[in-house]
This record gives sequence, structure tokens and C-alpha cells, in this order.
Amino acid sequence: MSAKVITIIVTKGSLDWAYPPLILASTAAALGYECRMFFTFYGLQLLKRNLRLQVSPLGNPALGSRLPVFIKTLPGVQAIFTRKARERLRAKGVADIEELRQLCLDADVKMYACQMTAELHEFTKKDFIPGVEYAGAATFFQSAGESDICVFT
Amino acid sequence: MSAKVITIIVTKGSLDWAYPPLILASTAAALGYECRMFFTFYGLQLLKRNLRLQVSPLGNPALGSRLPVFIKTLPGVQAIFTRKARERLRAKGVADIEELRQLCLDADVKMYACQMTAELHEFTKKDFIPGVEYAGAATFFQSAGESDICVFT
Amino acid sequence: MSAKVITIIVTKGSLDWAYPPLILASTAAALGYECRMFFTFYGLQLLKRNLRLQVSPLGNPALGSRLPVFIKTLPGVQAIFTRKARERLRAKGVADIEELRQLCLDADVKMYACQMTAELHEFTKKDFIPGVEYAGAATFFQSAGESDICVFT
Repeated sequence: MSAKVITIIVTKGSLDWAYPPLILASTAAALGYECRMFFTFYGLQLLKRNLRLQVSPLGNPALGSRLPVFIKTLPGVQAIFTRKARERLRAKGVADIEELRQLCLDADVKMYACQMTAELHEFTKKDFIPGVEYAGAATFFQSAGESDICVFT
Repeated sequence: MSAKVITIIVTKGSLDWAYPPLILASTAAALGYECRMFFTFYGLQLLKRNLRLQVSPLGNPALGSRLPVFIKTLPGVQAIFTRKARERLRAKGVADIEELRQLCLDADVKMYACQMTAELHEFTKKDFIPGVEYAGAATFFQSAGESDICVFT
Repeated sequence: MSAKVITIIVTKGSLDWAYPPLILASTAAALGYECRMFFTFYGLQLLKRNLRLQVSPLGNPALGSRLPVFIKTLPGVQAIFTRKARERLRAKGVADIEELRQLCLDADVKMYACQMTAELHEFTKKDFIPGVEYAGAATFFQSAGESDICVFT
């Protein structure tokens, strides 16, 4: 029997939303799934060589829910939330995004950058880590159409 | 013929984004689907005994689109949007999240809390309503891999 | 062999998040997929005759990441981000949402408005472009349950 296949569309580019697709991918690979990730729109940020991912508490009442919204807009507050999130993750032994990303590549997870949105953001292949390939819509649909699981994250 | 299966990943913890997964789940159950929900990241908030869900108009131009963004950041505005949303839902006869959640459990929807992110948020089982079970990645993939529908909300 | 089927749930109503589902749909149709879109919650905004879609940089650190958050809350900044996004898209030859939406309808993509959330938002059929049909949960599940790809965007 051939391996099960998972296709993950990655559209977000913040520190917190980087985790769900990469955790899904690394776990899928560990369980023997063939895993393909398509990074598009803001998700392309996660492929950059130099990550500067941030967490924003704005528009997300589930984060820092005891803090007035006005405080969350003040200078420096996003940086504090980002630093606290990193500290919390490190304290709990969760890998950072660079490590998780490399772990996925090492486990043969395929990472595709959406060519159309890469051009829109004026990214070139040099902006991305090695191992990333460009793909268009046809490649995506070929993968998604034969997948056991396909999620849009 | 065995029942169709739906797996729903729940990652958001605001009042408005709580509805789509719970409406999907309750409807699926009513239509005879076997339904499993995996709550992770901010979605774990929806499993708490005491819900204090809020709606934020920030970062969502589709909500309160006639209001200047600056007004949306002012003290009390998120509370007003939350109260108005609750009133609107009640006036239209839509169940509140506590009711919808219980309705799902009564209809045999399985609710799993992601163990890894529960630990990250320092939630214990006591924080969650009865009926919630812990699950790891293997349980998720077993469910998702055999599902007819799998969505990431 | 019958055509492959894709079902797309559309829940967001901003200019940037309008693109992923519509690009998926138009590409799917071009590749011979039978494509059905279910617009619900904020996604109903994308069906309106008069679109006034905006881009918000708040709550999305991946957008305008060099700008302090406080600046992003100031009057006029959302309008600037929206105008810049439109200019960028036009310069790159990307269709605008009205065109993309019509292109989908012309390619026989089915567009359904979720009846329950349309009532919640007090939309009537007159608010929507021609070609949109109302649908309830049963229609959605019938489509999703037989789809090769089902994504929640």
C-alpha cells in the first residue's frame, strides 16, 4: 500500500500562525505521510532565510484577553508579546520555526512557493531557504486532488 | 454502509470564529456524520468552563466597515461590538456558544483538546468542560486520514 | 470518468483574503474541476454588488512589518494599505475581485450564499450579484461529502 498523502496550504506569516502548518507537516512526516506544503500570500514569509516573525494580539481577543485593546496598540507591545511567546515556547521545549522548518525538510516534506504570489511580493528564489521549489496552480491541484488530507491554514 | 466522517480542527478563540466550527459540527451530527473536533492553539479557549469570548473589529475590515479604524482601538469598543454581536445572534434565534457546544456533545460529537498546546497554555483538564478528551497528533491523523471531510478552521 | 470536485468555504471579507478562495476556484475550473463555493459569515461580503473591500495591516505582522503598530491604527492608514495593494495587484496584472468573481461564474463555478448567516447579516438576495443561490447546511454537506478537495478559507 502506498503512503497516505497530506497537502497543506500555508497562507499566514505571523509567529503564532506559523506553528499549526509546520507541526502538522512534521507530525505527518513522522507518521509516514507523504507531505507537501504550498506557501502562498503571507505564508511565503515562512520560507525566508531571515525570519523576523512577530505575534500580534490585535484582532485576536483570545490572546492577552485581560489587556485593554488600546494598550495592545501602543509602541513596543507587539514586541513584548513576541518575546513572551518565544520564551514560553522555549520553556516548554517547543522547537522554534527555523528548527521546525528544517526538521520538515530533513523528513522529506516538500515545500513549494507559489510562483504567482512570490512575484506579487517581489520575492526571488534567493530570499528563500534552500530546498524550496516554485510551483504553480497545476502542481497544487495535482497534489491536492490525490491527497487523503488537504487543509488550508 | 458506515457513516461519513468529518474532522474539524479548531484554532481560533474569539466569539465570531467560534461559530463556524460548531455550526459545522452540530449540522454534521444532525445529518448522521460521525464528527470529531480537535481544539488546538487559541481554539482551546472554546473548551473552557467559563467562556469569556469577545469579538474584535480590528484586522477585520468586513466588521464595522463604516467606522474609522482609530475608533475601533478605543477603550470599550471591543466590548460594544461583543455585546452587539450577542444581541444580534439572540434576536435571530441563534444558539450561544455554550448551548451549541453542549448540543454537539449531546449529539455524540467527539471533542479533543490538543495535549501539546494545552500544556503550552498551561491548561489542565479541570479548565475544560466535561466530555473533553486529550489527544495527540497520532489520534488526529488517524481521524483525519479516514475522514470524508477535514477542515482547518 | 466524472470530473473531480472541489468545495470551498469562504468566511472572510477583506480584500487580501478574498483572493485565495477566488484564485483556487478559477484555477480549479480552468483545470476541469467542478467547483462549488459556499460563502458564509464575513465571506458574504464578497458576493455584494458593490464591493468596498479593504486591507487591514492590524493583527497581521506579515503586512507592513517595518511599520510600528501604533502607526497602523492611525486614521487613513487602512485606506493607504488598501490603495497600495490595489496598485500592486494592477501593476502585476492580477485581476481585481469583481473580475475574478465574474470569471468564476462564467466558468460555471457555483456560488452559494449561506442562508442562515445571510439572514443574520440582514442581507437580501438583491444585495448579491446575479448567479448567487441560497443554500443551507444540507446542500453544503452533500457537496463537501462527495468532494475530492474541501477547504475552509
